[in-house]
Amino acid sequence: MRIDPQQVESEIDTLAAISEQPAPVVTRVLFSDADLQARAFIKGLCRDAGLAWREDAAGNLFARWAGAEPGLPPVATGSHIDAIPNAGRYDGVVGVLGGIEAIRALRRDGFSPRRSIELIVFTAEEPTRFGLGCLGSRLLSGILPPAKAAALRDRDGRTLEEWRGRAGFAASNLGTVPLPAGCYSAFVELHIEQGPVLERENFPIGIVESIAGPSSLKLEITGVGGHAGAILMPERHDALLAGAEIALAVERAALASGSPDSVATTGVFRIEPGAVNSVPCRALLEMDVRDTRQDTRDQMLATIREATAATCRRRGVEWTLELVNADPPATCHAVVISALREVCAALKLPAKPMISRAYHDSLFMAQLCPTAMIFIPCRGGVSHRPDEYSSPAQIAAGVTVLAHALARLAE
Amino acid sequence: MRIDPQQVESEIDTLAAISEQPAPVVTRVLFSDADLQARAFIKGLCRDAGLAWREDAAGNLFARWAGAEPGLPPVATGSHIDAIPNAGRYDGVVGVLGGIEAIRALRRDGFSPRRSIELIVFTAEEPTRFGLGCLGSRLLSGILPPAKAAALRDRDGRTLEEWRGRAGFAASNLGTVPLPAGCYSAFVELHIEQGPVLERENFPIGIVESIAGPSSLKLEITGVGGHAGAILMPERHDALLAGAEIALAVERAALASGSPDSVATTGVFRIEPGAVNSVPCRALLEMDVRDTRQDTRDQMLATIREATAATCRRRGVEWTLELVNADPPATCHAVVISALREVCAALKLPAKPMISRAYHDSLFMAQLCPTAMIFIPCRGGVSHRPDEYSSPAQIAAGVTVLAHALARLAE
Repeated sequence: MRIDPQQVESEIDTLAAISEQPAPVVTRVLFSDADLQARAFIKGLCRDAGLAWREDAAGNLFARWAGAEPGLPPVATGSHIDAIPNAGRYDGVVGVLGGIEAIRALRRDGFSPRRSIELIVFTAEEPTRFGLGCLGSRLLSGILPPAKAAALRDRDGRTLEEWRGRAGFAASNLGTVPLPAGCYSAFVELHIEQGPVLERENFPIGIVESIAGPSSLKLEITGVGGHAGAILMPERHDALLAGAEIALAVERAALASGSPDSVATTGVFRIEPGAVNSVPCRALLEMDVRDTRQDTRDQMLATIREATAATCRRRGVEWTLELVNADPPATCHAVVISALREVCAALKLPAKPMISRAYHDSLFMAQLCPTAMIFIPCRGGVSHRPDEYSSPAQIAAGVTVLAHALARLAE
Repeated sequence: MRIDPQQVESEIDTLAAISEQPAPVVTRVLFSDADLQARAFIKGLCRDAGLAWREDAAGNLFARWAGAEPGLPPVATGSHIDAIPNAGRYDGVVGVLGGIEAIRALRRDGFSPRRSIELIVFTAEEPTRFGLGCLGSRLLSGILPPAKAAALRDRDGRTLEEWRGRAGFAASNLGTVPLPAGCYSAFVELHIEQGPVLERENFPIGIVESIAGPSSLKLEITGVGGHAGAILMPERHDALLAGAEIALAVERAALASGSPDSVATTGVFRIEPGAVNSVPCRALLEMDVRDTRQDTRDQMLATIREATAATCRRRGVEWTLELVNADPPATCHAVVISALREVCAALKLPAKPMISRAYHDSLFMAQLCPTAMIFIPCRGGVSHRPDEYSSPAQIAAGVTVLAHALARLAE
């Protein structure tokens, strides 16, 4: 099988230039102009590769290479092309452009699949717009009810329905998005590791055997504002200071969980009015909490709830704390893991069994069909930053494994 | 002397409706459309009151009622009409519209001043645009060199020169703004207290005898970003958490200063990238630190510097801490204080000697001429909020004292 690393690199370059911010920064938030342009670029590549594509009402894109027995559940691969503000070029993109290249390589090789092979580009894996990650795959899996999704609001109060209308999906109904279990025979996602392990231990490939259970919280604090010169310290109910204490408590919850896999992050922290001479009256925090064990993750959530209540009571501020999501960890499927192990052994590529601590569409695809993931190294473990990097050779190794695995699963 | 509280209230209503945000919120940031419209409204009132106005290159507005001996240094009054985001209707405005009404009342009364009486509307008392308060009066006093002012940049990188151009001041030179000491014979500013003392102790009038020494700091923290799921806790250099610790240290510096007048506030706190699943890589904080004693204030600044360095070193993040300003406290002038006391005694208005902990243009006018301030109560001590309130009767009492004081000082 001959992968073309230069072709993939060139397509990564083209896609990176489609961004809401100038290079080297990549920002492509759900249904922004950049996101819509990027989708058009991907559709063009699918057409050129001879794939027929369709989109569902959520904007999930499905591009199919019909197999000899098109009635069988297809094998699927894919990932996402949306990007958080100030992101890099590889997160998600490697699984989409690598998936297209895997299919092109199989065709060049004269391979003829028994099952159809489908590339899926999931809508909004990143939570930027609505504060909820994996919007597309979450809907596909049925874990997110369409009516609940339709009512999601962004920070300006605009709903998913309004955004779908802007993106040209107004005519189709979100209720048609969920898929039945067994609709695919298998799903394999190629992704950069977003952590330092493969690079540090010099493995070209990681085979993901489980995915950490992600959760997120949204906290609104309402204190009492006023003039920073005139309101004396004992009279204050400062929303920012309550938020600062809670952000530090979020960190402590992870450090004290007893598990080295625990992570807890305050990624959003906005205050009002935000003037140097004004006591902050409001604070909005969004927190991300994960562990590979659900009980450990849930214990951190409870600790954060208690710390929030204690801090807000002591400081005399009001608060509302919303659990945005608390998804179970996913166990990858033995059949897909075995296929990946055998391919790596045949290719003489050392493969490390891994846990994914990052959120992936695979977490939700695992609800629908046997699923596993292929990780490739990224420099310094860096992700969600403009200097995110995987080399053409590292990407080519991942695409080679993906192509062989798809062939094996589609036979 | 007959003050017209309804007229003043009606003008306060009209001015409040000129805002960047819908009622009841007042937001008028320097040289915004709302600020420019508000200036036009004030010029109209000055014209109607028979005052000739001029503007200097910084946008400070001077409206003069010529006295019998126009060669003598005039008596001045005034305040500001800019408003921080999410502010109320009275801060600054009472001193401007009240100043106009005081002059109208003196004219209605047939008073004829020996010295000219001048109303000054100072540019940008609030620090919102450039992070530096009292821009107009600071320039007038010479404490802020014009070249330094010209190079000020807002958060989008735009300079004061660009904003002056937008506002129509491009043709005039900032170098012409500073005034010589002695250019006015006295300055009196009418202002709401922005604190709870007068209301609580049932005084209609406060006479300000000194103004706290304000200072402000700007802190930029650069940590290391990355994926919130994948970067394990021991590997993190989170800019938000460093900022959170420092904001709490700012509070502690005021609580531990030994002075009940100490206030220290983190009013600006912005992070990047600001996505729930991304470790914050940058944080920008702006802090406001004040006390009536300069040594106490400077000790707080030193404590905050030390806490910043210790936190940033421990967390392995880079930082730059800039002292934006550190102004000396002002002592009000015995001659002006005496005039105010005598007027209040004659009017049988109980007057409380006060310290101003809030920033005022008087702080800088005190560098140019004998200065004092008249405070009136505001409900609950609330300021810098939409529910800021002083009653028409409370305002009328302040305007009456101002009018009599101007008459006395201009005789």
